[in-house]
Amino acid sequence: MRALVIGIAGGTGSGKTTLTRALINKFESKTSVVYHDNYYKEHSSLTYEERTKLNYDSPEAFDTDLMIEQLGELINGRAIDCPVYDYADHNRSSETIRIEPNPVIIVEGILLFCFPELCDMFDIKLFVDTDADVRILRRVKRDVIERGRTIESVESQYLNTVKPMHELYVEPSKRKADLIIPEGGHNLVALEMIIHRIQSYVGV
Amino acid sequence: MRALVIGIAGGTGSGKTTLTRALINKFESKTSVVYHDNYYKEHSSLTYEERTKLNYDSPEAFDTDLMIEQLGELINGRAIDCPVYDYADHNRSSETIRIEPNPVIIVEGILLFCFPELCDMFDIKLFVDTDADVRILRRVKRDVIERGRTIESVESQYLNTVKPMHELYVEPSKRKADLIIPEGGHNLVALEMIIHRIQSYVGV
Repeated sequence: MRALVIGIAGGTGSGKTTLTRALINKFESKTSVVYHDNYYKEHSSLTYEERTKLNYDSPEAFDTDLMIEQLGELINGRAIDCPVYDYADHNRSSETIRIEPNPVIIVEGILLFCFPELCDMFDIKLFVDTDADVRILRRVKRDVIERGRTIESVESQYLNTVKPMHELYVEPSKRKADLIIPEGGHNLVALEMIIHRIQSYVGV
Repeated sequence: MRALVIGIAGGTGSGKTTLTRALINKFESKTSVVYHDNYYKEHSSLTYEERTKLNYDSPEAFDTDLMIEQLGELINGRAIDCPVYDYADHNRSSETIRIEPNPVIIVEGILLFCFPELCDMFDIKLFVDTDADVRILRRVKRDVIERGRTIESVESQYLNTVKPMHELYVEPSKRKADLIIPEGGHNLVALEMIIHRIQSYVGV
């Protein structure tokens, strides 16, 4: 049986990860998760200072070819060694994570649906849609409280790259979605529907 | 077992009815369908001429209280005599249709999610979202080819009431939806997901 591949996209703070976690909780032993964020490009040829100035919110920031290749392996039932990104160093780490194949593969990332080749690999494309004001509030809380950043630095990154890239790439990519889920993992009616769809596939 | 009540809303030509028909096809003997359009208000006190000038695209055009009352009856397992609207006469007909209760009740209408009391009765609120240009093309085809109207009369009604009421009421009501379905019944991935949700409820 081919794996059921579910792509979950949507802007920063939209509720993608809450949705992904709810599905993992429910189908733990039958689910592999691949995060686009793990495939940020390697930039060892640049200095740390240069790396901090890169745009991390555009499709070009990712080594999506590698992700497509590894996702293909997983779909074909082979384990992969997924790259790991070191956010403190702004570079790919030397570590990898072993991801085993499973009947359900969830792929999560803000910009997934900007890549037609990736879209073709998804059986179900879910776009989590949440108002921009709610999303930035969540991002401010996460980055300031959990990651120790200043409000000013969050604001500057948001206005300089996150917001323009959202409008240029993320919002238009919503058109590729099969289903649009307001509020993502916080939307229990939608969550239940997705759970039933997966249950009917894995036969739980 | 309480009935599973699914509200299907979305603009004219969005693909609501295609979705409803696909669900009826699949769950024929277990499904009752209630159309908001059947509850257009009675206007026997007005002349035909006056009736043709009414705005049929606003929430006030409907006797939604009667629909809420009858939907409550259906949910509680009692058959209803649903009013019938005579489009040629622009008035409620003297006929009614008997609708029997069923484990699944689908309610379809452009403006459903504008009524909070109605929203509270739905277990699942689906909004079918299709671009305005695609929607008006479908409406022109339907009204000109199937209903024998002129393109000019379709244009005039669209620009005078359908479009302004869509922007004022329908589009904002999308926020009440649990799931937004691009292209409605033409979207097979979404359709399959809804079918699985209903199957798990009725145990087919």
